[in-house]
Amino acid sequence: MSVKDKTQVVGFLGPEGTFSELAARAYFDNSTTEAPEYSSWRSIKEVFLAVSQQHCDVGVVPVENSSEGAVTETQDCLDDSDLRIVGEIILPISQNLLVSKEHADTPISKIVSHKQSLAQCRGWLKEHYPHVQLEECESNAVAAEIASTHKGVAVIASSQVVEPYGLMIKSEDIQDFLHNSTRFLLLSKYELPSLSHGQSDFKTSLVLRAENSPGALYGILGPFALLGFDLTRLESRPSKTVAWEYIFFIDFLGDYQALEDSGLFSQLEAVTSGLKCLGSYVTLFDGRSN
Amino acid sequence: MSVKDKTQVVGFLGPEGTFSELAARAYFDNSTTEAPEYSSWRSIKEVFLAVSQQHCDVGVVPVENSSEGAVTETQDCLDDSDLRIVGEIILPISQNLLVSKEHADTPISKIVSHKQSLAQCRGWLKEHYPHVQLEECESNAVAAEIASTHKGVAVIASSQVVEPYGLMIKSEDIQDFLHNSTRFLLLSKYELPSLSHGQSDFKTSLVLRAENSPGALYGILGPFALLGFDLTRLESRPSKTVAWEYIFFIDFLGDYQALEDSGLFSQLEAVTSGLKCLGSYVTLFDGRSN
Repeated sequence: MSVKDKTQVVGFLGPEGTFSELAARAYFDNSTTEAPEYSSWRSIKEVFLAVSQQHCDVGVVPVENSSEGAVTETQDCLDDSDLRIVGEIILPISQNLLVSKEHADTPISKIVSHKQSLAQCRGWLKEHYPHVQLEECESNAVAAEIASTHKGVAVIASSQVVEPYGLMIKSEDIQDFLHNSTRFLLLSKYELPSLSHGQSDFKTSLVLRAENSPGALYGILGPFALLGFDLTRLESRPSKTVAWEYIFFIDFLGDYQALEDSGLFSQLEAVTSGLKCLGSYVTLFDGRSN
Repeated sequence: MSVKDKTQVVGFLGPEGTFSELAARAYFDNSTTEAPEYSSWRSIKEVFLAVSQQHCDVGVVPVENSSEGAVTETQDCLDDSDLRIVGEIILPISQNLLVSKEHADTPISKIVSHKQSLAQCRGWLKEHYPHVQLEECESNAVAAEIASTHKGVAVIASSQVVEPYGLMIKSEDIQDFLHNSTRFLLLSKYELPSLSHGQSDFKTSLVLRAENSPGALYGILGPFALLGFDLTRLESRPSKTVAWEYIFFIDFLGDYQALEDSGLFSQLEAVTSGLKCLGSYVTLFDGRSN
């Protein structure tokens, strides 16, 4: 039994048509069991709450883009909540410039999109539309709706929104970096039985707090290096309790069992003032297992 | 001769009324020499360009907030450009809910602000205006202008914009964390003579690239720990060339001379594939020297 088999309702960062919905469907639509229900939530925080309050079995939120970096709201929510990370899916992100079919010939006077999408196309926009006003909005789907009803307004979004909003593609694959991908996390209130427990392709996520003293971070990284664990990511975030103090998010290759068996966990406990395991999980690439 | 004495034109992240302008004025207005001219630029990237193309002597941009974390656009620009960090000022950030004086009694139906300001007041907004629509816009000053001309629209901003936009304070000091401060960097095309060369309160900023191999970051932090340098910050950013590879921004206490004399620089060169010093500089707190 795995994450896929146990899941009836999947919440995602909405509205419909976002990359989070694409990620959720890519993860669950290949499931051999019955397709789950999907529910859309207005913010990352609301997805966390919906899972926590059991309106959903699993929540899907973005956590990092390969060119734009961390989604800090997701990290802050991970630290605050007691949800577990039970899976991860990496989705290639292709951005497109879309306009209303009806007003396709109107010159573009404004381009709207989510800030992450605008940031991913910054270079392209500067080259092709240097003088057009850019406007951030809360999601690409909301932007698509605006573009569908306002003459001269284009949107940057996935091709997913073309059909439902009566849009057409004006320029395709406009992201600045071809390797543009986003990592999405699957969150659950309970530890779900893993897809392939014991295999070496598990990843484990930790949040660590350390005293603000010289060499503190070096002391944290020591046990990983000396025991041969490969860090895939280290991200610092403000502690939110004391100005200019930080907490650290660390991902490494290995499962929870390896963390305990190797002595890593107890060695980390000795050099941190707080240590929380967010989950051990397997990464899927665009719906395919690694 | 110091940064203050040599500066005739100061560019800042505009428009007028932003915290960047407050920071620029707090830094230069206490100067003993003639007050500089100030010029406003539309984006962080434009401030970098303006300094690089010598439209300004110094540029002022935000780099980190104590509760919301890094301003990633500034970090990416620092890596791309050849500007030097020649100073830093830390400004306490007080956020306020402001409404148009004229329509002060109209119920609030929408709150607009820059995303960082909205994020800094997330908890307060949820408690006091849970059902009011929130809208991001490019700066608090632009938001102030919208609020001044639209009935029922409030803005989150510094009290600085009250006067010029005909607003009034509805709620004061609404940021979620009382210690809310932002660090602003001063950028220059040329290394300016330092304010207090040789003193111990210098900070130095580096960007480092390392091979993507187990223990690589541990290897980078080793020389700092073993030579007794105190890291004040470590931030990872996507390398932008290979997906899921990172570069590291490191700040530590000490000046460039100490970096060379101690052997730290040559030790770092041995464990990195790229090493760039962004500058050594002194921190001012709200216009006062530390």
